Amino acid sequence: MSKKLPKRSEDFSLWYNELVKNAGLAENSGVRGCMVIKPYGFAIWELMKDQLDKMFKETGHQNAYFPIFVPKSLFEAEEKNAEGFAKECAVVTHYRLKNDPNDASKLIVDPDAKLEEELIVRPTSEAIIWNTYKGWIQSYRDLPILINQWANVVRWEMRTRLFLRTAEFLWQEGHTAHATKDEAIAEAKLMHNVYAKFAEEWMAMPVVKGYKSDSERFAGADDTFTIEALMQDGKALQAGTSHFLGQNFAKAFDVKYETSEGGKEYVWATSWGVSTRLMGALIMSHSDDEGLVLPPKLAPYQVVIVPFLNKKKQEQNEVLLAKANEIKDELAQFGIRVQIDTDETKRPGFKFAEYELKGYPVRLVVGPRDLENNQVEIARRDTKEKSLQSLDGIGQYVNDLLVEMQENIFSKALNYRNNHITEVNTFDEFKDAIENKGGFVSAHWDGTEATEDEIKNLTKATIRCIPLDAKEEAGTCILTGAPSNKRVLFAKAY
Amino acid sequence: MSKKLPKRSEDFSLWYNELVKNAGLAENSGVRGCMVIKPYGFAIWELMKDQLDKMFKETGHQNAYFPIFVPKSLFEAEEKNAEGFAKECAVVTHYRLKNDPNDASKLIVDPDAKLEEELIVRPTSEAIIWNTYKGWIQSYRDLPILINQWANVVRWEMRTRLFLRTAEFLWQEGHTAHATKDEAIAEAKLMHNVYAKFAEEWMAMPVVKGYKSDSERFAGADDTFTIEALMQDGKALQAGTSHFLGQNFAKAFDVKYETSEGGKEYVWATSWGVSTRLMGALIMSHSDDEGLVLPPKLAPYQVVIVPFLNKKKQEQNEVLLAKANEIKDELAQFGIRVQIDTDETKRPGFKFAEYELKGYPVRLVVGPRDLENNQVEIARRDTKEKSLQSLDGIGQYVNDLLVEMQENIFSKALNYRNNHITEVNTFDEFKDAIENKGGFVSAHWDGTEATEDEIKNLTKATIRCIPLDAKEEAGTCILTGAPSNKRVLFAKAY
Repeated sequence: MSKKLPKRSEDFSLWYNELVKNAGLAENSGVRGCMVIKPYGFAIWELMKDQLDKMFKETGHQNAYFPIFVPKSLFEAEEKNAEGFAKECAVVTHYRLKNDPNDASKLIVDPDAKLEEELIVRPTSEAIIWNTYKGWIQSYRDLPILINQWANVVRWEMRTRLFLRTAEFLWQEGHTAHATKDEAIAEAKLMHNVYAKFAEEWMAMPVVKGYKSDSERFAGADDTFTIEALMQDGKALQAGTSHFLGQNFAKAFDVKYETSEGGKEYVWATSWGVSTRLMGALIMSHSDDEGLVLPPKLAPYQVVIVPFLNKKKQEQNEVLLAKANEIKDELAQFGIRVQIDTDETKRPGFKFAEYELKGYPVRLVVGPRDLENNQVEIARRDTKEKSLQSLDGIGQYVNDLLVEMQENIFSKALNYRNNHITEVNTFDEFKDAIENKGGFVSAHWDGTEATEDEIKNLTKATIRCIPLDAKEEAGTCILTGAPSNKRVLFAKAY
Repeated sequence: MSKKLPKRSEDFSLWYNELVKNAGLAENSGVRGCMVIKPYGFAIWELMKDQLDKMFKETGHQNAYFPIFVPKSLFEAEEKNAEGFAKECAVVTHYRLKNDPNDASKLIVDPDAKLEEELIVRPTSEAIIWNTYKGWIQSYRDLPILINQWANVVRWEMRTRLFLRTAEFLWQEGHTAHATKDEAIAEAKLMHNVYAKFAEEWMAMPVVKGYKSDSERFAGADDTFTIEALMQDGKALQAGTSHFLGQNFAKAFDVKYETSEGGKEYVWATSWGVSTRLMGALIMSHSDDEGLVLPPKLAPYQVVIVPFLNKKKQEQNEVLLAKANEIKDELAQFGIRVQIDTDETKRPGFKFAEYELKGYPVRLVVGPRDLENNQVEIARRDTKEKSLQSLDGIGQYVNDLLVEMQENIFSKALNYRNNHITEVNTFDEFKDAIENKGGFVSAHWDGTEATEDEIKNLTKATIRCIPLDAKEEAGTCILTGAPSNKRVLFAKAY
C-alpha cells in the first residue's frame, strides 16, 4: 500500500511530487528532465486533449502536423524568437552511430555522419510553420489559415519538475495567418477565451484573463494574452497563452499576400498553446492531503463501485457483482464512466485509500445488508461526505451529484482565489502580502521594465498579467511613486 | 485549378506524388526527409487513429507517454536492436546555441554545452520503455503491462517518399510485458489480428497475415507477425507488424519478476506498431487517375452537397441552401459526415473535379429543377455512377450507399489482390511473374538466408511473409531445388 502523503501545509512541494508519483500520474525517466506520463495520468491528459480539440474544431480550426526539427537557418530567422529559445535547445548534429573500435559492445557517434546544417528539436514551431505557410499563401483567398498541431516540444530546462517544467513536454500549438491586423487580434482573443472557458468549466480552475508586460511576453510576439491561475500554496501558474504575433514572422520568412485590390501585404499571425503543464495546475488547484481531487469532467472514472466481496462467500459475491453491474449499466446510460472493483483479496480500507489517492469522484459501496435495504453507501471525494441512497433512481442521483461536485470544486477554488487577491498601495504592504499571505497582489506599477526587475529582485514576485478588466484608476507606483492609471497583478509564480 | 494527374498506367510513382500533393494530403518540408501532413491528410489520419485507439482500448490497452530521447547507453543495451537502428539515427549532442561571434545575426552550437552522453531521437521505444518497466515490475502481480503510445519517431532514411518512408513519421507503438511465453505470443497474435481487421474493415484493404523470415524480422524480435497488402502497381506494402520479443529486452535491461511460487524469471515481451505509412497504403490501394478514392469509413467528409448557386439569383440560392441544410440534417441523423459547398464563384465542373481529387465518396447536386421534382443527383466516387434519387428517405438511401461502397471498394481490391497471387514452381516462372505480372508470387524456398539474398539480388523480390494459412505441401526450392514443405510469398515491395 502506498505510504501516506506529506501534508500540504508542511511541505507543499514534496506533497506535490509524492502525489504525482503515488497516484500513478508521472515519474522521472532515465533521460535528464524528461518524464514518463503513466497510464492514469495520460488518461486525464486525454480527456483534456479531447475537449480542447473539440473546442478548437468548433472555432474553425483544423489539425495538421509539422516536422519536429528546425534547421538552424530557419530557427534564427526571427531574431527575438531565436534569442528566446537558443539558450535551452536540443541540437542534432549527427545522423549515425557506429561501433566503437575499442569496445565492440559500444556505439559511438560516427564523425563521418555530421549534418551539414544542425537541426534544433522544436521548442515551438513558429519558424518551421511560417517557412511552410510561405508556400501556401499567395492571395487573400488563401487566408485565413487556422491550424493547430498536437506535438511534443523540447526546452532544455535546467531545473525540472514533473508536469510543471520538463525538458520534453506535450502541448498543442495553434498557428494562424490572417489578412488584417484586426482579424489576427480577434483570433488571439478568441483562443484566449477558449482557454479561459476550458480552465473554468472543465478544470474547475478559476483564471484571471489578462495580457503580459513587455518582459513577460512570448519571444517574437507583439502581445501575449494569458490565463493565470492560483495554486493552493498561493503561487500563480500561467496556464495558457495566446499571442498576437503582428507581422514579425511574416517579415522574417517573407510571407506576403496579394490583397483584393492587387497590392502586396505582409500576413498577420497568431499562435497559442497549452501543455501538459495543465496537469500540474489541475493537481495543485484541488487536491488534498489524502490525494487527488479531480473535477468529474476530467476523471477517467467518475464512479467506482466497490462490492463487499468475500473470498469465502462466492455465492454472495455473485449477487453483489450482478447488482454492481446493474448499477453500472444504469449509470452508463447517463454517460457516466464507471469502474467496478472485483478484487477479492484487498481490504476495503486499503481500497478506499487508493481511490481517494487517485481522486475517483464518487465511490459506491455495495454490501449484503445494503442490498436487502435496496440502498448503497455513496462517498463523494470533494467533501468526503458519505450517505446512504436508495437504488431507485440511482443513475439520476449520481449524475446530479457529479454536476454539483464539478460546481463545488470550482466554487471552492474560486473562493480561495478571491480571498487571495490583495490590493496594496505601498511597497511595505506589497512585501507583506507577497511574503506572508501569498496569492495575487494588485498594485500600481509605473509601466517600466526596470521597476518590474527591481520588484522581482526584492521579492521574487513578477507581474503575472495586466487584467483585461482592470479599471482606470489614478495611483502611484508602489516602488517608484511614479503615476500609474491601472493596477496590475503580481505574484510569485511557477 | 489543380492540373490533371499523371496516369497510373504511365507513371505510378509520379501519379502518387502528385496525388498526395494535389489532394492536400502532405508535402515535403524545409527539413530533409521530413514531411508536413496537411489538414486534409491529417483528418484522414485522425480517423484511422481514433478507430485504432478504440480497438486497442477494447483489447485492454492503456495509453502512456515515454521520452523522445534515448541515452546512448540505453540505446546500445539490446545489441541486435541497437545494430538495426544505429546506422540511421538522429543524435543530439548539444543543448544550447550561442551568438556567432563573427556574425551577430547568426547562431552557432555552443561548444561549452556538449552533453555528457549523447541522446538518440527514438527510432522505436523498446529501450527507453524497458528501462522504465524495470522499475514497475517486481512480482507476477504487476503483470501483464499492456501499454500503447502515440508518438513521432525518427529514422534517418536516405531515400524518402511522402508517407511511405520519411525521416520523421507518426505511429503508435504497443509495448507489453507478460509472465509467460504463451501469454506474450497470444498478445502478439491478438494485435496482429487487430491490425488485419482494421486494414480490411476500415481501410478496405485486404491483407495477407503471416510471419517474417529471419532476415526480415524486427531487430530484437524472436518472431515478427506482419500484414502485407498489395498496391495497384503490383508492389507489396508491409502495413503493420506485431513482434514477439521473447526475453531479449528483459535480459538486456535485467527485468525479472517474482513468480507466484517465489522464483525469479525474466519477463516476456511484445511490441507492435502501425504508422502514417498506412496513409500511403490507403492511397495506393484504391485511388484512380482522377484522384483519391476513400473508403467511406475513413473519409473526413463522406458526402458533399453542392447546391447550384448563381451569384445573380440570391433568392433561389436561399431556397437551395435551405434544402441543402435540410438534407444535411437528415444525413447527420445517420451519423454521416456532410459538407455543404456554399461557394458562389466557382463553376460546377471545377468543383466536381476537386471533390473527385479529394475522394469525397458521395456528391449530392441540388439544382432548381431537382427541387421541383423533389430529387437530387447522386454521384458515387468509386464507380463514378450518377443517378437521380427522390429526397424521400434520402438519409437511409445514402447511409446504405456508403455501406455498399465500403464493401465494393474492398471487393475490388480483394479481386485485384487475388488475381495477383501467382503460384510458381521454377525460377523461370518466378522471374516472369515478378517482372511481368507483379503481385505476390507463391513459391517454395529452402529456408536459408543465402537463398533469400540471392533471389533478392537477381529479382529485387523479397519474402514478404510466410502466410499463417500456408498449407503443408512437399516441394523444392525454386532457386536451389532443396526440399521445402510450404510455400512463402515473394514480391517487390515498398
